[in-house]
Amino acid sequence: MQIANIAQPTSSKVPPARFPRDQWYVAGFSSELTDQPLARTFLGEKVVLFRTGEGQAAALEDRCCHRSLPLSCGTVEGEGLRCGYHGMLYNPAGQCIEIPGQERVPSKAKVRSYHLVEQNKMLWIWMPAREGSTPGSAPPVYPFHEHPNYKWGSGMYHYQAPWQLIHDNLMDLSHLGYVHLKTIGGNAKLHMNAKMNVTQDGDHVKVVRQMPGSTPPPTYKAAWPFGDKCERWQEIEFHLSHLRIWTGACEPGTDAIDDPQRGGFHMRGLHGITPETAETCHYFWSMASTRHPDMPENIDEVIRQTAFTFDEDRVVIEKQYQNMREFGERADWLDIHVDVGANRARRVVQRLTELSEASKA
Amino acid sequence: MQIANIAQPTSSKVPPARFPRDQWYVAGFSSELTDQPLARTFLGEKVVLFRTGEGQAAALEDRCCHRSLPLSCGTVEGEGLRCGYHGMLYNPAGQCIEIPGQERVPSKAKVRSYHLVEQNKMLWIWMPAREGSTPGSAPPVYPFHEHPNYKWGSGMYHYQAPWQLIHDNLMDLSHLGYVHLKTIGGNAKLHMNAKMNVTQDGDHVKVVRQMPGSTPPPTYKAAWPFGDKCERWQEIEFHLSHLRIWTGACEPGTDAIDDPQRGGFHMRGLHGITPETAETCHYFWSMASTRHPDMPENIDEVIRQTAFTFDEDRVVIEKQYQNMREFGERADWLDIHVDVGANRARRVVQRLTELSEASKA
Amino acid sequence: MQIANIAQPTSSKVPPARFPRDQWYVAGFSSELTDQPLARTFLGEKVVLFRTGEGQAAALEDRCCHRSLPLSCGTVEGEGLRCGYHGMLYNPAGQCIEIPGQERVPSKAKVRSYHLVEQNKMLWIWMPAREGSTPGSAPPVYPFHEHPNYKWGSGMYHYQAPWQLIHDNLMDLSHLGYVHLKTIGGNAKLHMNAKMNVTQDGDHVKVVRQMPGSTPPPTYKAAWPFGDKCERWQEIEFHLSHLRIWTGACEPGTDAIDDPQRGGFHMRGLHGITPETAETCHYFWSMASTRHPDMPENIDEVIRQTAFTFDEDRVVIEKQYQNMREFGERADWLDIHVDVGANRARRVVQRLTELSEASKA
Repeated sequence: MQIANIAQPTSSKVPPARFPRDQWYVAGFSSELTDQPLARTFLGEKVVLFRTGEGQAAALEDRCCHRSLPLSCGTVEGEGLRCGYHGMLYNPAGQCIEIPGQERVPSKAKVRSYHLVEQNKMLWIWMPAREGSTPGSAPPVYPFHEHPNYKWGSGMYHYQAPWQLIHDNLMDLSHLGYVHLKTIGGNAKLHMNAKMNVTQDGDHVKVVRQMPGSTPPPTYKAAWPFGDKCERWQEIEFHLSHLRIWTGACEPGTDAIDDPQRGGFHMRGLHGITPETAETCHYFWSMASTRHPDMPENIDEVIRQTAFTFDEDRVVIEKQYQNMREFGERADWLDIHVDVGANRARRVVQRLTELSEASKA
Repeated sequence: MQIANIAQPTSSKVPPARFPRDQWYVAGFSSELTDQPLARTFLGEKVVLFRTGEGQAAALEDRCCHRSLPLSCGTVEGEGLRCGYHGMLYNPAGQCIEIPGQERVPSKAKVRSYHLVEQNKMLWIWMPAREGSTPGSAPPVYPFHEHPNYKWGSGMYHYQAPWQLIHDNLMDLSHLGYVHLKTIGGNAKLHMNAKMNVTQDGDHVKVVRQMPGSTPPPTYKAAWPFGDKCERWQEIEFHLSHLRIWTGACEPGTDAIDDPQRGGFHMRGLHGITPETAETCHYFWSMASTRHPDMPENIDEVIRQTAFTFDEDRVVIEKQYQNMREFGERADWLDIHVDVGANRARRVVQRLTELSEASKA
Repeated sequence: MQIANIAQPTSSKVPPARFPRDQWYVAGFSSELTDQPLARTFLGEKVVLFRTGEGQAAALEDRCCHRSLPLSCGTVEGEGLRCGYHGMLYNPAGQCIEIPGQERVPSKAKVRSYHLVEQNKMLWIWMPAREGSTPGSAPPVYPFHEHPNYKWGSGMYHYQAPWQLIHDNLMDLSHLGYVHLKTIGGNAKLHMNAKMNVTQDGDHVKVVRQMPGSTPPPTYKAAWPFGDKCERWQEIEFHLSHLRIWTGACEPGTDAIDDPQRGGFHMRGLHGITPETAETCHYFWSMASTRHPDMPENIDEVIRQTAFTFDEDRVVIEKQYQNMREFGERADWLDIHVDVGANRARRVVQRLTELSEASKA
């Protein structure tokens, strides 16, 4: 059916979405998929996530091929998803398998499907550079959602800002002393003056910062019986689809801060940042922490303070982006010493975006 | 006065409004015009409706020719409408007849007026293809607002969707089994499998569907003492400005479902759908129903359930359109068996739109 | 740092801001600057206002040169303003004087600063036509905030309308009889028929209107023991950045209405109207009034009624502009007798705007 005499949908204000593709991105947490379909947009593509009666997680284009109602307005039914307007039923491969009242189902009655893998309590979606490109590897493994030494919790934010501004924020934790004084901040000057070591291995960028002689910040004191001082570390790993941030502190003198097997209070953060559009993104995070044997179970308090902390970041980053939009091309950036890691991550994103664009052509 | 150094109003995002013109459209119900002017936009044109002291309904361009305040911000005064800024008074023909403090009223002190006819408790407005084109005929007659066998009530919705999506919805009632299970739905498969008969007479399209052996749905049971089964019918007539939908059911064996004079429970729906802009519309509806002699007066309950039902449609259609906008050109439509009537109506709208465009040139 | 692979901020819908520049505009009232920075946009430029520890009022571009966070999200600290993201500290001249954790502060670590003068309890900002253009004169002097015969109060509105629509409104007070009947209105015909005298001296336009034999309106009766009649006057002076409106009334027979030293009830209004964008503006107003020796202190009531009155104007003007946007080029204006003063003010604005544009090139 030609729909020419319907009002042509007006062009969106959002610039064309250029992102690294042929990549796994975090689509959500396993716990989000219950008996209702879930609508979410990734890299500019509207997707419906659902779990079949047999428990399989699936992802389809969020649009019935008949009259364009979002399939996420429909209902999960046995092996598939049924549209809520005229009842067309789709299987997890996107093929329509029933048109009520019509004997023949044409083969072109179908919608696009996406590779979706459930692993480590997370949902990973493969965003192809072009139709038919398939994953060459499994999604990344993340051990701390199933590790005996850690308890974890999670949360998510929708950001009115491009995904890379969150990379910038996380690749340089020196902002803690200005933005997060109520939770994990600590002394601003100590953070800014700490020696920072940046290394790169292929598309992974690592930033390590150590702050011996730190005063333990509020979250740390709530979770571990620190005295006046502690030895803090921050180890930040940038991967294209997510960052892994290992922060923590050990008591002065008791542990070697450089020992990979060190004890003390650990916070293992996963930060899955998935573009929604060119100007918005999803931020899926989890935080796993260790527990001191003499302290009561603290994970709920750690998660509460983490959520509070990450919300402070969201406020800052959304204000930053709004200002960038308003200043437009006049908003040039001056680099300072703390930007080394973030700028390397930007170059990785740029290179992989260009690769994707070339592979589209 | 040149107003060049005022900020030029920015161009609207809405595509140019192309509609069938030289047509009567529903502008509202008689009961809406009291002692206050009423602002409403039809086919992209801002109109103020008002009723003079003598009771005449009138329609003008909603803009004072002095400094552009909407005339709907003014007050009805005797034979005319007075602007709320500097007090210019307009008569129902759009001519300014008083400029306070100024002796002479220039002849160009005027605004556009519209042909407005009040008939069958409704207001019909003539939307010309070009200035000066006048109605060649009276507005359509609708008998069920003044019929001794029927009681009626009415309502209206503002839609964030183009008018034709409502045509599509109403021309194919097979969606009842998926969208309206709480009121007039009934068995989905029975609806989808029912034989549908589509005929056309000039610009009128008629869709008839009969469903003998139906289980009476909630609204029907609330209004008529049906047993387990009833014989349902749906007769839908598409006119350019409105649809007339005659639905109902008779008791099995007692009435010939094909008899035009048949009894039973009748619902006579008027659906006046008037474009507001290319992307929005007004939906003025009334519902008239018959009453069983052994049942208490039921029109209030019928209207309540009808309003609920039509609101379900609104939610679906607005989500559909939002998705069409977001998918843009990728949102092609696959036709199925139920679309025959709706597609014929679309061809009528397209033909009459092209006619109007040609007549403008 | 190139930020090319960040989403390019999309172009604003607002037309390019063309305004008279190399002018002092009202930026706010002294009382607004406490210990928090204040964000405000003038002539399309985002500005942060703050008061240093020593009490100096200052104005900078509202954007950190590092990563574009608004400086208004930061904190005032001693002699400067510290960014709330990574702690860069700026002095009132816009120079960054500290980058935490970095020894050297590059000279290009700076933002634009504005000339800001605090005078007569108001803040005046110089909006240059091009970088480096400096004020050739001090801001206008306004005596009625420090005058022994007057008490005053103030308020401000943000307008969703271009600044010149407020000029139009104030340069012709004949709308009082239609818009402000509850406060300062009075008899509509008397206002419209009053003789109006318009004079011009350079870029200043003056409109004088006298209405002997007026019935005192509610605000006047609340403030002065008028009898049945009074002799009202309106003297409106247009200056580019603000209007000074002297209205009032004296008792019939007791005072010469033409005597500049006349007594009676006086309202001295200052109306600082500063463009925010091409389509929005700030309206800073103050009202000073005299007091009758036999009446209780009335300034609070005068301010309350003035705020109510000005809010009525805002409603009308915003509706007017919305209508202008919607009618677009079809919204031509027909001039009537009361528009003489407003049209002169428009010509002043146009001439000074063209001068500024020429001076930019």
